[in-house]
Amino acid sequence: MDTKSIQDYYPDELSYCFGCGRLNEHGHQIKSYWDGNETIAHFTPESYHIAIPGFVYGGLIASLIDCHGTGTSALASYKAEVREPGTQPSIRFVTASIQIDFLRPTPLGVELELRGKVIEIKGRKVISEISVSANKEICARGKVIAVQMPENMSKNI
Amino acid sequence: MDTKSIQDYYPDELSYCFGCGRLNEHGHQIKSYWDGNETIAHFTPESYHIAIPGFVYGGLIASLIDCHGTGTSALASYKAEVREPGTQPSIRFVTASIQIDFLRPTPLGVELELRGKVIEIKGRKVISEISVSANKEICARGKVIAVQMPENMSKNI
Repeated sequence: MDTKSIQDYYPDELSYCFGCGRLNEHGHQIKSYWDGNETIAHFTPESYHIAIPGFVYGGLIASLIDCHGTGTSALASYKAEVREPGTQPSIRFVTASIQIDFLRPTPLGVELELRGKVIEIKGRKVISEISVSANKEICARGKVIAVQMPENMSKNI
Repeated sequence: MDTKSIQDYYPDELSYCFGCGRLNEHGHQIKSYWDGNETIAHFTPESYHIAIPGFVYGGLIASLIDCHGTGTSALASYKAEVREPGTQPSIRFVTASIQIDFLRPTPLGVELELRGKVIEIKGRKVISEISVSANKEICARGKVIAVQMPENMSKNI
């Protein structure tokens, strides 16, 4: 497993995402890695990240799925191009759509594990499925459709 | 328009949601109201709620849609039962699933408007559609399936 996450390879100017930007000091700074043919990330919610006391807030779960989905998409695209993250041109995805099923309440107080599977790579679009587990039990499943960042977004930086 | 939001009527012990709990001092504290046959809420993202500089983070947009969806569901259920929020028994929804299409980048620096439409009420389940607009342009659309909170969740409080 690469000791650096895909987010560690994002260019500085694209590393301020609240969910996964290593330079956003207010954000979650999640980090996504390959783990065999799947991708993996971990996050431990704060005590105030609750929906009701004892259970993790669904909006946070959506955020984690979103960012691990775009990270998974970037990892998959480098692999599809048979080159390493960090080589040029840099690949950065944004989310086109996201669908999440909350299967059971997610308990607070434990580390969450996100696992990603690449379903389809089609041109600049990648579809991935992301699960969120607590205590080895899947609490939520998401499907993320991500697209490589359009030129007109990065021009605004 | 009721001067109190639906979230102002949630019982104290169910008012700690990171997205909409009035008692969660770290959270977004969004507030949902009727506006004619639609529901409405407003939120101004912080400077660090970004995906890339200049644009709002999709995870935040998902959070807002989630909470305005559950709030819309509660408002709709009271109306369907022809009684006012604040009367007993209290109605509180949780999210079963959420689907979001990000139609265009959402600009940072302006107040976002969320509008909700009730699509279906079926027993304890409510389906709503939520739009998110910036500068009167819709940037994201969501569909929220919410269910009244199961007994086994509130027993854990």
